[in-house]
Amino acid sequence: MASTDSRRADSARDRVVAAARDEFARHGIAGARVDRIAKAARTSKERVYAHFRSKEKLYEHVAAAELAAAADAVHLDPADLPAYAGQMFDYFTAHPDRYRFIGWGRLELVPEPSGEPDADALGSYHDAILGKIETIRRAQRAGDLDPTWDPVDIMAVVSQIAHTWLDQAELAAVTRHAAADPTLPARREAVIRAVTAIFPPVRRSQHDGR
Amino acid sequence: MASTDSRRADSARDRVVAAARDEFARHGIAGARVDRIAKAARTSKERVYAHFRSKEKLYEHVAAAELAAAADAVHLDPADLPAYAGQMFDYFTAHPDRYRFIGWGRLELVPEPSGEPDADALGSYHDAILGKIETIRRAQRAGDLDPTWDPVDIMAVVSQIAHTWLDQAELAAVTRHAAADPTLPARREAVIRAVTAIFPPVRRSQHDGR
Repeated sequence: MASTDSRRADSARDRVVAAARDEFARHGIAGARVDRIAKAARTSKERVYAHFRSKEKLYEHVAAAELAAAADAVHLDPADLPAYAGQMFDYFTAHPDRYRFIGWGRLELVPEPSGEPDADALGSYHDAILGKIETIRRAQRAGDLDPTWDPVDIMAVVSQIAHTWLDQAELAAVTRHAAADPTLPARREAVIRAVTAIFPPVRRSQHDGR
Repeated sequence: MASTDSRRADSARDRVVAAARDEFARHGIAGARVDRIAKAARTSKERVYAHFRSKEKLYEHVAAAELAAAADAVHLDPADLPAYAGQMFDYFTAHPDRYRFIGWGRLELVPEPSGEPDADALGSYHDAILGKIETIRRAQRAGDLDPTWDPVDIMAVVSQIAHTWLDQAELAAVTRHAAADPTLPARREAVIRAVTAIFPPVRRSQHDGR
């Protein structure tokens, strides 16, 4: 349906988004340079601003896409939340730059120390998360998950545990020699074990057919 | 023992540390201005550099002190890790600027995306954490905590869960209307509940005397 011209425009836009992600991940928002993004995307600074009004808007656009991509990359089976945490662990361990990218917005775009980001700027992520919340709610109704938990708390706690070793960087640094096994498989195992204790997976027989 | 001169110097140094904490929390390391720190501490830029060789060294000094202060402010009773998580939740909820301060270092001082901070720069925090790890190890030997967990994993998982709602800012933003109860007491309760499921507190009779 798209004309050749609009396809070409889309592709320049995609290159800007990819270049912006790398630039922001490395330098943050204040430190990012739009001319470097333009150069890496083989376009001009003016074209970048034509697509995304400001550096902050460009960041917000990439952030919503990144968060939505992470949500989409990890399949949520509400009957097996430990496996979900394991997949999330794998995703961000494989893409530490993506996790780093998200961290900048938390510090640079939220002026109030205790504030939350602007939900309107997180459109595609918003939809991905509300879909998962609904999936959890259905599983609770079906008896696969403890219905006394708020589905939002389930999402928050499981995601949080999955990121343990990405967030606890200072703890990891000072305990390097105290840990019995600081390798990734051992850390992944600890994540799975913690989530299993809170939300044990539903054991189904092979004939259950669900 | 200290002469009047060195006491005066200590006090200027303390004012620099306090001013630096506020400046870094607000603007990050790259964005912080040493002249603003000097002015807020009623001293000169030259005196700031005389005490702390560079802006980065100043940040590292304040970071180690902040992390150690947080570790000291929260009492670890290894027989009641849910209470420990609750205290940690309270500490950072009351001091979101301190949590924010720590976040900048994770992004700005760690050049490698998957890297960890320099453990040598975290001296006082290092000592506070290794003390807690040893406390956990002793509780495991005494039968108060499951000995099959690595004590470092216990520290990491409990701390991580305590910070759930500080870290899950995007999730909090997009689920504001989906959550049954997004108030602080409800979130604190979810933190306690999650830690209790993994590390149930030891129930002792009143006559146990320990």
